[in-house]
Order: sequence, then structure tokens, then C-alpha cells
Amino acid sequence: MGKLTVVGIGPGDYENMTVRADRALRESQVIVGYHVYVDLVRERYPDKEFLTTPMTREADRCRMALEEARAGKQVAMVCSGDSGIYGMAGLVYELRGGAAEPEVEVVPGLTAACSGAALLGAPLTHDFAVISLSDRLTPWEKIEARLTAAAESDLSIVLYNPASRGRPDYLRRACEILLDKLPADRPCGVARNIGREGETRELLTLGALRDFAADMFCTVFVGNSQTKGIGGQLVTPRGYRDV
Amino acid sequence: MGKLTVVGIGPGDYENMTVRADRALRESQVIVGYHVYVDLVRERYPDKEFLTTPMTREADRCRMALEEARAGKQVAMVCSGDSGIYGMAGLVYELRGGAAEPEVEVVPGLTAACSGAALLGAPLTHDFAVISLSDRLTPWEKIEARLTAAAESDLSIVLYNPASRGRPDYLRRACEILLDKLPADRPCGVARNIGREGETRELLTLGALRDFAADMFCTVFVGNSQTKGIGGQLVTPRGYRDV
Repeated sequence: MGKLTVVGIGPGDYENMTVRADRALRESQVIVGYHVYVDLVRERYPDKEFLTTPMTREADRCRMALEEARAGKQVAMVCSGDSGIYGMAGLVYELRGGAAEPEVEVVPGLTAACSGAALLGAPLTHDFAVISLSDRLTPWEKIEARLTAAAESDLSIVLYNPASRGRPDYLRRACEILLDKLPADRPCGVARNIGREGETRELLTLGALRDFAADMFCTVFVGNSQTKGIGGQLVTPRGYRDV
Repeated sequence: MGKLTVVGIGPGDYENMTVRADRALRESQVIVGYHVYVDLVRERYPDKEFLTTPMTREADRCRMALEEARAGKQVAMVCSGDSGIYGMAGLVYELRGGAAEPEVEVVPGLTAACSGAALLGAPLTHDFAVISLSDRLTPWEKIEARLTAAAESDLSIVLYNPASRGRPDYLRRACEILLDKLPADRPCGVARNIGREGETRELLTLGALRDFAADMFCTVFVGNSQTKGIGGQLVTPRGYRDV
């Protein structure tokens, strides 16, 4: 019987992949995914059959993966970062519906909140919210309400999908909403191309973040009221020093 | 020159550790940590020197690790889950302060939001908040405000530290706050002992969660308005099906 394993490969390099994700890819016959993510693993698992779909064809991609598994294949579907957080695991379960077949396994991976935070220092030592700025599947008003709620309740914030070619000004719009509640000198950070060629990190204020030219390879961190820069690292204290 | 690597080991099993975390532990001379976490890795890296401290001695633990690194040792400090999210990386940077020495590297790991979500299905496909219910280092009023803000803005919620021996009723208190804003039939889930012996998963409603006997080995997931049970999995849709 076939099986579909939805694999979070982490930021993209082998080092940040889990032992379990590596094994799932090694044991697969077919690797399915968005072509950019498939290209991240193609070289290390060259003997596999590769099936790719364009970015906006998520449902097609999941149907294709389920079909291959129903046909008896060991299928691995790769997601960048985690397989669940903005990943394909949910859609796979939705499309399989109540059916027991094919077997589905979800293998978690390092999401950009974890890998980006480690690159920037330790901005997520305390409570935080993860919010995607993409309004392709979510009304902008809902995104706005979440930004405001997170800022008002002093959560650190991680912004996924801060910009794309079609949405060049979304990070600016988000920052303007946040600046209604937060000071312009609030420490922030941007991690770009985490674990890949051209990896960069930048610490900046919320005011400067408003004018930052982000793209789809960026993950953005907005500190809480306690976050500070320490020796070039973005750090949110947990409070342990006071204990 | 010594170096301190703060290593997120994930939920605790080797399979869910990253390649990089495994290498950091193999290349270390000294492994420092809370004794429960050190015990998770002791068997696989038996030739190391192990230094442990009790749970509430976080600052002592970090100072000990920094001191060993300053003395020229290759030191790995283990954190369960991620090294940053409620982990020790922030405190290490705080205690090192502006000094350039010793070198510090933060190795991210699978936090319970990722590993627990994968065990329960795919509850974090959309925006979410991560909130710890421990008020050891945070005023309860702040925790309450964050719970309310997350519920009001329709974020899925992950609760860390839902209970302990000293706080047996905190999950109930949190649920009562959430039930002010959310319906009692809101789909929720509890992952316990993720990736360890005695791993369990439970899907239940927010109403039932209020009476759930959680302990410190549990991570709790509260769905957003779209979250549902599908074939025994807790799933939050991303919205792709409508595209």
C-alpha cells in the first residue's frame, strides 16, 4: 500500500533538516512539491521521481500526491519550513476527507519563526504571534485586526510573506498599523534566505522597517516591549534574570 | 578558543532532532542542561562530560555554560524543543552582554507548536499565537490579555506550560477566559509526551478542555473559527480549496 508523507524540510539546507525528514525523503519513491522546494532537495536524493507544480496550484499538487500514494507509491511531499505552519498538511487532510486511504504521515520541520529567530538572536523567548501578510487567501481586514491585537497585547510578532512582486507595499502597510500602537524605536529584525545561499540578517527599528524593501524570501520579527539589541543580537528576555 | 552552542533538541527523540543539532552534540566536549533534557541525550552521546542544574536555576545553568566555554571548552547547552522559544538562547545573550567572548551559536530545534501540531493533524495552517500559561515570570493579567486578544482576532492558539504541580488549575482558568469569546464546541487538541515514551494525542472541544487534567508534559492547541476535525485529525484550513 502506498503512503503520503508530508515533509517539512526546514529552511532548505541539509543541516537544518531533521533526521526523520531525511529518512522520509530517502525512503520515498516520488518527491512532490512546488518546484523551488523540490530544487532544494533534488541533488541529495537524485534517484527519485520528481513531480512539481507551480506556486498557486496547491490543491492540484496535493491531489497529485494523494493519487500517487493511492497507486501504491511511497510519496514524499516537500514543504519549506514546517509541513503544517502555512504548509500543505492541512490541505492534504482536507482533500483526503474522511477516507482512511492512503495513509498520511506529517513530518514537522523547522519553521522560519525558529530558524529566523536563531539567526537574529533570540527574539521569541516570550509569547508571540505568527501572522502572514499574504491576502491571497485571507481578507486584509482580518490581517489588520490580528496585527493590532498582537501589538496591543504586547506579543512579539513574526511576519511571514511580508511582500511579493504583487504586494510590494504590504510590509509598509503592516508597519503603519503597528506604529499606531508601538513606538518607532521598537527593535525589529529581518532574516532573509535563511539557511540558503545569500543568507542575511538585519536589525532595525520598527520605523526603519516601514521603509525596508522586503521580498518573499524575508521573515520579519517585531519585538515586544522588552526586546532589545545586545551585542548585535535581537533578544527578548524571558525574565529569568529577575528570579 | 571555547564556544557555547545553544542546541534545540526538539521533542526529545533522535528522529526529530536536526542534523545540525546532532552534529553540535557530537562535536561538543561538555553538555549542559536541565537534568530531564540532559537525560534525553545522555545515551546517544555517552563520552561527554555532563553538567546539570535544577529547573529553576536557569541563570546558574547559563553562567556555568558560558564559564566552561570561556575556559576553552566546546560546550553544548541543550534545550527541549527550540533553543529560542521559551529557551535559553536569550538568557545566554543577556548574560554574555556586550562581550565578544565566548563565541555563541544558536541551533534551532522543533518547538512543540510544530511537533505537537504534526501529531494532532494540521491545526496551525493559518495565523496563530503561542502563549505560555506559566506566571512564574509573567503577571497573570498579561497572560489573560494575550488570551483575550488572540481569541478576539481569531488566531489559533498554542498553550505552552498549561499546568504544573503548583498550577493545577491554570488550563481551566485559561479556558474560562477563552470561553468568554469562543464557543464551547471550538475544536481543540492536546499533545502529550511528543516524541517520547507514552506519547498521546487527544481531540476535544474547548468546553471539554476546561476540565482536562493537563500536566507539564502537555501542549494544548485551540483552533480558530475554521478549525475542524477531519478523519480524526485537527485541521485548520489555509483557504486553498477556494482558490
